[in-house]
Amino acid sequence: MHSEETPHMSSRHKIVIIGGGFGGLTAAQTLRGADVDVTLVDRRNFHLFQPLLYQVATGALSPANIAAPLRSVLKHQSNCRVLLGEVTGIDVAGKSVLVRDEQLPFDSLIVAAGAVNNYFGNAKWEQHAPGLKSVEEATEIRRRVLTAFEEAERSAAGGHRQRYLTFVVVGGGPTGVEMAGAISELARHTMRHDFRSLDPSTARIILVEGNNRVLPPFAEKSSSRAEEVLKRMGVEVWTSSKAKDIQADHVQVERGGTVHRIETATVVWAAGVKASTLGKMLADATGSPIDRAGRPIVQPDLTIPGHPNIYVIGDMAAMTSNGKPVPGVAQGAIQAGKFAAKAILKRAGGRTDVGSFSFWDKGSMATIGRNSAVAEVGWLKLSGFVAWLAWLFVHIVYLINFSNRVMVLFQWFWNYLTRNRSARLITGERAAHERP
Amino acid sequence: MHSEETPHMSSRHKIVIIGGGFGGLTAAQTLRGADVDVTLVDRRNFHLFQPLLYQVATGALSPANIAAPLRSVLKHQSNCRVLLGEVTGIDVAGKSVLVRDEQLPFDSLIVAAGAVNNYFGNAKWEQHAPGLKSVEEATEIRRRVLTAFEEAERSAAGGHRQRYLTFVVVGGGPTGVEMAGAISELARHTMRHDFRSLDPSTARIILVEGNNRVLPPFAEKSSSRAEEVLKRMGVEVWTSSKAKDIQADHVQVERGGTVHRIETATVVWAAGVKASTLGKMLADATGSPIDRAGRPIVQPDLTIPGHPNIYVIGDMAAMTSNGKPVPGVAQGAIQAGKFAAKAILKRAGGRTDVGSFSFWDKGSMATIGRNSAVAEVGWLKLSGFVAWLAWLFVHIVYLINFSNRVMVLFQWFWNYLTRNRSARLITGERAAHERP
Repeated sequence: MHSEETPHMSSRHKIVIIGGGFGGLTAAQTLRGADVDVTLVDRRNFHLFQPLLYQVATGALSPANIAAPLRSVLKHQSNCRVLLGEVTGIDVAGKSVLVRDEQLPFDSLIVAAGAVNNYFGNAKWEQHAPGLKSVEEATEIRRRVLTAFEEAERSAAGGHRQRYLTFVVVGGGPTGVEMAGAISELARHTMRHDFRSLDPSTARIILVEGNNRVLPPFAEKSSSRAEEVLKRMGVEVWTSSKAKDIQADHVQVERGGTVHRIETATVVWAAGVKASTLGKMLADATGSPIDRAGRPIVQPDLTIPGHPNIYVIGDMAAMTSNGKPVPGVAQGAIQAGKFAAKAILKRAGGRTDVGSFSFWDKGSMATIGRNSAVAEVGWLKLSGFVAWLAWLFVHIVYLINFSNRVMVLFQWFWNYLTRNRSARLITGERAAHERP
Repeated sequence: MHSEETPHMSSRHKIVIIGGGFGGLTAAQTLRGADVDVTLVDRRNFHLFQPLLYQVATGALSPANIAAPLRSVLKHQSNCRVLLGEVTGIDVAGKSVLVRDEQLPFDSLIVAAGAVNNYFGNAKWEQHAPGLKSVEEATEIRRRVLTAFEEAERSAAGGHRQRYLTFVVVGGGPTGVEMAGAISELARHTMRHDFRSLDPSTARIILVEGNNRVLPPFAEKSSSRAEEVLKRMGVEVWTSSKAKDIQADHVQVERGGTVHRIETATVVWAAGVKASTLGKMLADATGSPIDRAGRPIVQPDLTIPGHPNIYVIGDMAAMTSNGKPVPGVAQGAIQAGKFAAKAILKRAGGRTDVGSFSFWDKGSMATIGRNSAVAEVGWLKLSGFVAWLAWLFVHIVYLINFSNRVMVLFQWFWNYLTRNRSARLITGERAAHERP
């Protein structure tokens, strides 16, 4: 039998971590070997490598390629227990977290529940424009994209066909750029010989970005390079444009003072995220401020004001580093997870000053289809094939478990050689019941 | 653009194939290069290698590993069009098939729509005991099996824990034997160190078979060998036993005159199949007989009596070979697909005698966990490691597309070395909404 039959009875410092994403998982792993009791709570049983979800949405990878069971990752870390369940309450004064019917006591708490899609008040858009935050959303987008080509094949030329062959990606950040590029690859190369009565390369792919350039956080040079590559791939780049309405069969986009109606059956949302609802719950419980995206505004040590034992990190926190906001990227969460875990150990050891979180920006990158990417590391700005290799390298290195790393590398290598996307499956409840 | 802009206008012999399983896909591929117009209709966009679904259900493989997009498989076969849709009617006199709102004219028809689970009149059991016929069922079983362990970890010892740790597989044919063995592997090896308060190897796995031995179609020697290996793996083998009732929290099994109540949260159905509903539809339209499993009883040339242009093949047909029934296995469907395609070409060429279908039994095999299997090829009966290697070889050879073959081999090799099952994901609508 196992060593910790009754972890609750222990008198060791109890740490509860909510969320097994980049931040929470890194925090748990940082606590490996420490004389503490860790409980990692997540409502899913796996860690998900979200930056690659767009590859699931376009049939290049399977969900299991970019997910690792949390128990599997933490199986040899005996001070850490994994609990599957949704957190329904946080009792700040009583120092416990409610997971379904179970009270989970803590001495220190790390909240790292991540972000969800932000439709900026237009909740109705969600059904017509799923985002790229979960496995289910990615396979749903995959279902919609592939079904659109099937419907186009069935439709007479003209008529509904052009609507089915029009894809709109809202949001020109890295996710939107990568998604638009991947749809173009799919249509122009992978499915090139798949149909008999339509030419999939006639698909129209429109990338809508509110800013005056794609990849707004990048340098202008990278943005224009990305736009250039996208255009060469046949993607229409609509900058300074804004989605005004999204319906099942069309979207309305404002561009240059005019509202354009675009007939489309497939819209992907990549325009923004907001904190998990736990952000609001925590703010209500502690009286601490949240920003417009619902993220608790944390202290320099990543704790909630007045609660030096409650840390909020990653996408769901408004974190700052040397007075500047920390971007909502994997690196921000990973580094914050490490910092929070170490700060807890310091405080448990009697230290009061744990210092301030300092984000080391290792750079940003976005891939645009095959062989091309933009990457920025400090003053260094790369683009094209070299940037693409860098992107490949970094993503493989950070994939959480070795098995996935090997399989993904192998699958990518295969896809690269053959331009194949063998995970082009239309699955799911809707596929099974509302059959086309 | 593509060569066959208007396939319906062609005066070539029109062949419609319903179903892209082993039978239908083989028929389509056999027609490659022939001067005919082929339309393959399926309600799914992929061919599924059903014999390996139990590996998806236990997290060893991803759905995409055992599925190949039909368009991808047939992309270079220019005389074949793929149509995604459900067949809602067959007009025998008018020689057309109705797919949604589209009339599909045919000169010859091959119906190969496969089989569904047969609950023998107990339709209510389906919700509590999914079978292994579709990707959705396999991922649903995976969800249930993995969730049961999670619930057991959360439950106090005794109480509900034992119920969550009890798995019942109904049906002791190859699918049931493979499934029971795989659950045992999962519990006793893969998840060995995954939990802190429970020992997953205490899981109870019960295989229920009505016959007096498992693998009834095999030789007695193979059956007893399989039973021996299963018992060594900790599986309880209940032969001469029959499921009398299946509920959400228990099953009732009659064994030796006594009805036993088994508390369980996870039941897998592997006890039988029946023809797709198209079998009945076709029988009604042609006045031809069907057997108890709803399968049209076809002539020696696989056609419906009085309709020499309508072939029914594979799992949905009651086929005979030299007066003996053909078993519902992949080989039966593959060989029938080849025969039907060739018979159509012969008749289109003016021949009236196409001969009788003759099934060449290449043997049967079933794997029982790691390193062990039983295989029968004619008089040759293998078991143990050699049989397991044979099983491996045959399954890799018959996997439909090269990309999958390489990936599956690689994944298996990895799983074998590490006893890992990295596709242990709890996903799906229910996982996302009815969170545990």
